[in-house]
Amino acid sequence: MAPKITTALDVMGGDEGAAVALPGAELALARHSDLHFRLYGDETVVKPLLEFFPRLKAASEFEHCEVAIRMEDKPSQALRRGRGRSSMWQAIEAVKTGAADYAVSAGNTGALMAMATFCLKTAGEVERPAIAGLWPNLKGEGVVLDLGATVGASADLLFDFAVMGAAMSRALTGKPRPRVGLLNIGVEEVKGLEQIRDAGRQLREADLGNLDYVGFVEGDDIGKGTVDVVVTEGFTGNIALKTAEGTAKQIAGYLRDAMRRTLLARLGYLLARDAFSRLRTKMDPSRVNGGVFLGLNGIVIKSHGRTDAAGFASAIDLGYTVVRDGLVDKINQELSRHHRSEAPGGEGEVAKTGAM
Amino acid sequence: MAPKITTALDVMGGDEGAAVALPGAELALARHSDLHFRLYGDETVVKPLLEFFPRLKAASEFEHCEVAIRMEDKPSQALRRGRGRSSMWQAIEAVKTGAADYAVSAGNTGALMAMATFCLKTAGEVERPAIAGLWPNLKGEGVVLDLGATVGASADLLFDFAVMGAAMSRALTGKPRPRVGLLNIGVEEVKGLEQIRDAGRQLREADLGNLDYVGFVEGDDIGKGTVDVVVTEGFTGNIALKTAEGTAKQIAGYLRDAMRRTLLARLGYLLARDAFSRLRTKMDPSRVNGGVFLGLNGIVIKSHGRTDAAGFASAIDLGYTVVRDGLVDKINQELSRHHRSEAPGGEGEVAKTGAM
Repeated sequence: MAPKITTALDVMGGDEGAAVALPGAELALARHSDLHFRLYGDETVVKPLLEFFPRLKAASEFEHCEVAIRMEDKPSQALRRGRGRSSMWQAIEAVKTGAADYAVSAGNTGALMAMATFCLKTAGEVERPAIAGLWPNLKGEGVVLDLGATVGASADLLFDFAVMGAAMSRALTGKPRPRVGLLNIGVEEVKGLEQIRDAGRQLREADLGNLDYVGFVEGDDIGKGTVDVVVTEGFTGNIALKTAEGTAKQIAGYLRDAMRRTLLARLGYLLARDAFSRLRTKMDPSRVNGGVFLGLNGIVIKSHGRTDAAGFASAIDLGYTVVRDGLVDKINQELSRHHRSEAPGGEGEVAKTGAM
Repeated sequence: MAPKITTALDVMGGDEGAAVALPGAELALARHSDLHFRLYGDETVVKPLLEFFPRLKAASEFEHCEVAIRMEDKPSQALRRGRGRSSMWQAIEAVKTGAADYAVSAGNTGALMAMATFCLKTAGEVERPAIAGLWPNLKGEGVVLDLGATVGASADLLFDFAVMGAAMSRALTGKPRPRVGLLNIGVEEVKGLEQIRDAGRQLREADLGNLDYVGFVEGDDIGKGTVDVVVTEGFTGNIALKTAEGTAKQIAGYLRDAMRRTLLARLGYLLARDAFSRLRTKMDPSRVNGGVFLGLNGIVIKSHGRTDAAGFASAIDLGYTVVRDGLVDKINQELSRHHRSEAPGGEGEVAKTGAM
């Protein structure tokens, strides 16, 4: 029998806290019987609720935590208030001590990233961590990083993001050599920023065996699914993510409006109801819920703060999949192989263009 | 009788050239009888085709140009090949000499921006020009700039973009004090880049009478229509624009797929056909076709390269509206008022953070 995979859950995170985290864990458990849970939260909230999920209760240990990080806490505030004693911290620390294989929280992103970086530290020579997300596209779904952990990235960091994103894509899709693109703008010659060009040169020259670098991609390639992995720094990645979310809502609004306008349209809508519900599912963010923090000594999954139980379960699934694939070890091996191979190569340091 | 407004048309620009530009001009002319045209292009192509548009022929002068800039020409190449003698250059130069009030081209963006900047020069103290676009949103449409003219922008330049975008919004909507937001990411504390924070501070302190600065906005606010004007530098703006386009195509693909899946869905689709066609119109990029180059001594409109006649006519309309409103003069007045008022104020130079 394969060893169990242990998930550390910050039960207090997100807008709904335990009311979403516990049923979410129950759902994930139904899919993966080799899951084990460590639940961190306020006992007055979690313990009575846990009684309604006997299967989860049997597959988990609970630990009381005095502090719950709030959605509006700033990262520095969260660290001050919550270090050592918050459910968010405890879940992350369980990964550090080896008590858990990965942590999941729907708590606020800034606080979670600050705590995860503080507690787990960046892996090897990676300068800063990234948030990698699964982005639905016309061919299925792709990995996009960084979605907002770092503002600005040097060429070296973009290179590391490419290696990390490709490793995640391999874990999720099984493709041995995922196609990787660097996000850029299509103005010829100017062709974007120096550090992006440098990162492209590095990726081309490295010619990695498990990553197919295809060059620059543009914003519309994300939705098209032109590549398996889209690499960018966190400011641009976050703007792109939010813009896509806004556009999806906008079009859903147009569609609702159009279908209510006439009697015929209403009737048509009724007949095509199943098709519309399929469409809604496709556009539903909870289906592909969860960003993975990459570049740390351990896996932390950020679930959307406004997710439901199904979405939270997806976030647990995501962590389960990448952990079972040994993602952290693979990334560390690949990065250290590259960083080592670079040193004697004599090509010297690539100029770091610094914060954008 | 009000004086005529003269449009200089690069008839050779875009994927379809004269076959789209001439019927487009004819459409715009039907809407605005006070339009006059100067047509620049290859006589062997344009002259025979113009015979099919007698009304346009009567309202225009034609000038033969030896060179047509190609969609794949790089900006430097375009300048070398086309300076002085291409239809694109001639259309822009007509604005410089006062022979036309504004120029329209569906030619390649990089070449058009390079020529427009070279020929018209940036206005007053504006460091670099911006491309401002009309972006459909849930409340109608908003102005977003810069969509790709500049990579990186100092706080001063973002301030100037805000003033220029607000002037464009006033011209198009008649709102006396459009709401303006700076595009940023929602991570607390880190809250994006130094130059964006600085620009926000400047806008707040300037407290302009015809611009309501509301603070930072995020990517999803563009589609929501939270503000009338969204200001960002060109790299991020271009990525956001392309990402939104990609998302719209992606959802259209899902919708098509969903509506074909079952017989009931097909029937429903037939009944709701008009509603779907309304939706398509809403999502149709040609409806809001045209980016305005702002910050130059003259107005140049970039129409989408793959537009149809209706889209090209929208681009002509857009220029007509902002020119009739006296956009360039208003922008120059407002910017010079601000730049002047800053000098004796004693607050000194705001640090320029340079390229991003």
